[in-house]
Amino acid sequence: MTTETDDEARHKAKMANRKAVQDAEVAGKTIEKGLLIVHTGKGKGKSTAAFGLLLRAIGRGFQCGVVQFGKGAWQTGERAAIERFGDQVKWYTLGEGFTWETQDRARDVAAAERAWDRATELMEDPSIRLLILDELNISLRYDHLDLGRVLAAFASRRADLHVVVTGRNAKPELIEIADLVTEMVAVKHHFAAGVKAQQGIEF
Amino acid sequence: MTTETDDEARHKAKMANRKAVQDAEVAGKTIEKGLLIVHTGKGKGKSTAAFGLLLRAIGRGFQCGVVQFGKGAWQTGERAAIERFGDQVKWYTLGEGFTWETQDRARDVAAAERAWDRATELMEDPSIRLLILDELNISLRYDHLDLGRVLAAFASRRADLHVVVTGRNAKPELIEIADLVTEMVAVKHHFAAGVKAQQGIEF
Repeated sequence: MTTETDDEARHKAKMANRKAVQDAEVAGKTIEKGLLIVHTGKGKGKSTAAFGLLLRAIGRGFQCGVVQFGKGAWQTGERAAIERFGDQVKWYTLGEGFTWETQDRARDVAAAERAWDRATELMEDPSIRLLILDELNISLRYDHLDLGRVLAAFASRRADLHVVVTGRNAKPELIEIADLVTEMVAVKHHFAAGVKAQQGIEF
Repeated sequence: MTTETDDEARHKAKMANRKAVQDAEVAGKTIEKGLLIVHTGKGKGKSTAAFGLLLRAIGRGFQCGVVQFGKGAWQTGERAAIERFGDQVKWYTLGEGFTWETQDRARDVAAAERAWDRATELMEDPSIRLLILDELNISLRYDHLDLGRVLAAFASRRADLHVVVTGRNAKPELIEIADLVTEMVAVKHHFAAGVKAQQGIEF
């Protein structure tokens, strides 16, 4: 007969074993460095998770920067909230909107260049610990920016600077040099059921 | 001979076509409703994207609630930042840590029950527009909470309440009733290269 007490003891032994594995794993990781993080894929949450990281970094007292390459003035919920933190976050929205909104390649290239100038400036600012380059992958995909130039800037950045790059279709060369790459996969999407983009959720 | 102008005209026509498709798609979506959102998968960004949504909703003036089922007092960067918004966010951290930390099933069940009581309370509070149930999937996976009870509560919630559930191994029955499900897939992880969890990034 299996008693409750046997079950509990087994559970406890199993979890103790799991904790030992977990602790050994944590002890094996000793490097601290600024990470190059990429959020890509067709699912939702790429920019949203970047803003979650921003919130965490703000809570730790980091100075942060945000450069938005893609979305024009469209997304304002998170920006409105971040204004509460004043000078702790430098935020630049320099995209002209999605590329199919502008229908003008020269204008898209110019907007991407302006955004990249800001990004470079923030990378060179020693006070900045976290820099979010939102939708940079889109500018790279459409060759609005030179990939080699971007990769070189990342490779030569300060050792303690975390950089987060978002957007679909991340370039393989970027994934290659990144420390952390997450693909957001759409399992199910409410747009397919006729639900529209809603304030506080999508923007 | 192809001139620059031909290229530009082609680009413009292609983008105009794409914009028309996009606009028609947007126009076809008319429903507004509180969404049941699930972030699952083994990759990073599940809770982080939920906190990004929180930031967006705060920026839109929503009252919000957060109940943490899993992590004890471990994750504090985002919470420290959110305190700046005072009463706009009700935040409860009720998990006792990961289940392999406690090694005590009865204690895990009791902690999950306490967290669920808070979740129910917040779902019944008409001022709350967004509720994050962080790591609830873990409590459901280990049967610390009854799945049927949780699903019934979601099904009967207020029509304008957005709920976000995070954690690996989301139950198929939860995915079935959800409006939006994203799987975070780990493409590349810095822990594998010996880099440790760092303040401002992981916690």
